[in-house]
Amino acid sequence: MPQYWWVNHKQTWQQEIEGQYLWSPKINANGSRNEFYNNMRRGSPGDLVLSYADQHIGHVGRLAEFAFAAPKPEEFGTVGANWSRDGWLLPVYWTKLVPPIRPKDLIDRLRPLLPDRYSPFNPATARGNQGAYLAEISEPLFNVIVSSAAFDLALLARGGSNSLSYESVVEVIEDIIERKITDDLTLDDTVRKSLIDARRGQGVFRSNLEKLESACRLTGITNASLLKASHIKPWRACETAQERLDGMNGLLLTPDADHLFDRGFISFGDGGDVLVSTRVDREDLRRLGFDQLVFEATGLMEAPAGWRINGFLAGQRPYLDYHRQHVYLS
Amino acid sequence: MPQYWWVNHKQTWQQEIEGQYLWSPKINANGSRNEFYNNMRRGSPGDLVLSYADQHIGHVGRLAEFAFAAPKPEEFGTVGANWSRDGWLLPVYWTKLVPPIRPKDLIDRLRPLLPDRYSPFNPATARGNQGAYLAEISEPLFNVIVSSAAFDLALLARGGSNSLSYESVVEVIEDIIERKITDDLTLDDTVRKSLIDARRGQGVFRSNLEKLESACRLTGITNASLLKASHIKPWRACETAQERLDGMNGLLLTPDADHLFDRGFISFGDGGDVLVSTRVDREDLRRLGFDQLVFEATGLMEAPAGWRINGFLAGQRPYLDYHRQHVYLS
Repeated sequence: MPQYWWVNHKQTWQQEIEGQYLWSPKINANGSRNEFYNNMRRGSPGDLVLSYADQHIGHVGRLAEFAFAAPKPEEFGTVGANWSRDGWLLPVYWTKLVPPIRPKDLIDRLRPLLPDRYSPFNPATARGNQGAYLAEISEPLFNVIVSSAAFDLALLARGGSNSLSYESVVEVIEDIIERKITDDLTLDDTVRKSLIDARRGQGVFRSNLEKLESACRLTGITNASLLKASHIKPWRACETAQERLDGMNGLLLTPDADHLFDRGFISFGDGGDVLVSTRVDREDLRRLGFDQLVFEATGLMEAPAGWRINGFLAGQRPYLDYHRQHVYLS
Repeated sequence: MPQYWWVNHKQTWQQEIEGQYLWSPKINANGSRNEFYNNMRRGSPGDLVLSYADQHIGHVGRLAEFAFAAPKPEEFGTVGANWSRDGWLLPVYWTKLVPPIRPKDLIDRLRPLLPDRYSPFNPATARGNQGAYLAEISEPLFNVIVSSAAFDLALLARGGSNSLSYESVVEVIEDIIERKITDDLTLDDTVRKSLIDARRGQGVFRSNLEKLESACRLTGITNASLLKASHIKPWRACETAQERLDGMNGLLLTPDADHLFDRGFISFGDGGDVLVSTRVDREDLRRLGFDQLVFEATGLMEAPAGWRINGFLAGQRPYLDYHRQHVYLS
């Protein structure tokens, strides 16, 4: 069952529509949590969202992926300068709503359907709530809006292209960071090369990591040709060269485990307990060969013999904390 | 047990030592097979190799990876212009042998140890055989050479760095190809972007592939966020834009399956039978969750219920044929 959302774009609505995404900071400028920003992480692929800007709903979108940690898009330029650099990026396929709908015109039908708390729309003023960004709405509310207009549902369902896949979007973000590293004249050549190699889990980063970890934490495999050097705090999210090359900021994982960890479908507690997101399908985990993760997730299966993960080193824990907070899809 | 090898470098010995590899064409210029080129694919990580050039053995190497299909290194320049562009690259950690050994000086001790067929060294002339490139030798022969000199065995075993990993070497090769695509003014911008996106299994290539395949052939998983778009004939080996974007030249595979397929540890027959290389460890396959592959490899395990792979489309078969010949580690 899809969820339904309503976004009140800020000054960057054109960038978000053209760029096929939503982006928000993770927290308020004063450091406090923000329900509307947290909603970015609650959206799932397939959810539908109404785009509200300039008093009109002009687009309907389908979430293409789960949100992931990403720096503020370059194309925002100086807009939103007060927003923190660190945020959530949510890839969305947008399609036009024709004609655009002015919710004010439908206020009598909308009023009983608007949520009591965290409403995106103020029934008293018949305008979007300034403080709201991404708000959950009910299916009936969604239907009232779209039933007065037309949009290409088939195109929306199909998505048109896969340019919004996690891999594609991350590739673009990381390419930008890599170019900055390449152009950074304060770095010496060796460091520059190490930082770029670290993006793919190679070079100095992998050597540093191999001094600390020797096997995949989930499968026990020690054969280096089957192991990926995975950053715990993602390469794109690291703030210093030290973080990008720190062996403590890595795990050796087999390709499936690396993928699940990188996408936030699994994470680890400091003591070595495995966290399995409710947003990954149990049957998929079983097909991937992770019966032990199905056990962790449900408690319904018996853990395989010898299934135990060692606790993590003190130096790994701050990175794992980041992973649990910012990558893991809790 | 490691195997022992002897390479007679041609004009490119300096490039091969400095670049930390061996490279050979796959076949002779006249199209016939060549035992010494085929040996490139018989080497395994950990094997030891003697480097013979200019009548001296000046280096000892340890194979860092299995050989893989790679174009002729750029740094060969115009040397070896008669060699085909398409060849095998074998990453090798080299370390100096001090002093260099002249086999001619040891000919009496070497003569009884040289192989009868495909010998790298001619006992009559006491010179390297012109026609030989990579030749297998016995451990005693290897020991006769190295026992008269010194080399840093610990460094050789450790390898010094992981800059020779499959991933690192392929990344360098593919970066060169990507730069050529970027600089190719005959391509229009859309095609150029598609070709570069295809390197990571994204964009038009993935869309084309998704019209033909909908699930991982090995696990049955259909969840797109767990599937990689893998080229059958590797992106770096494709000769035309059409091959790089052809949906027929791809499979959707989960990350482990993608990795095994990409590294040549598994392949497929046209009818859908799975080929499992003898060079992948059975216990590793089991830990990766591929009990069914252990079955395919040994016949000793029962195939899981429902384990069946559909045959491939006519358009996929030429690419699979390439994979079996040039990627699969038979």
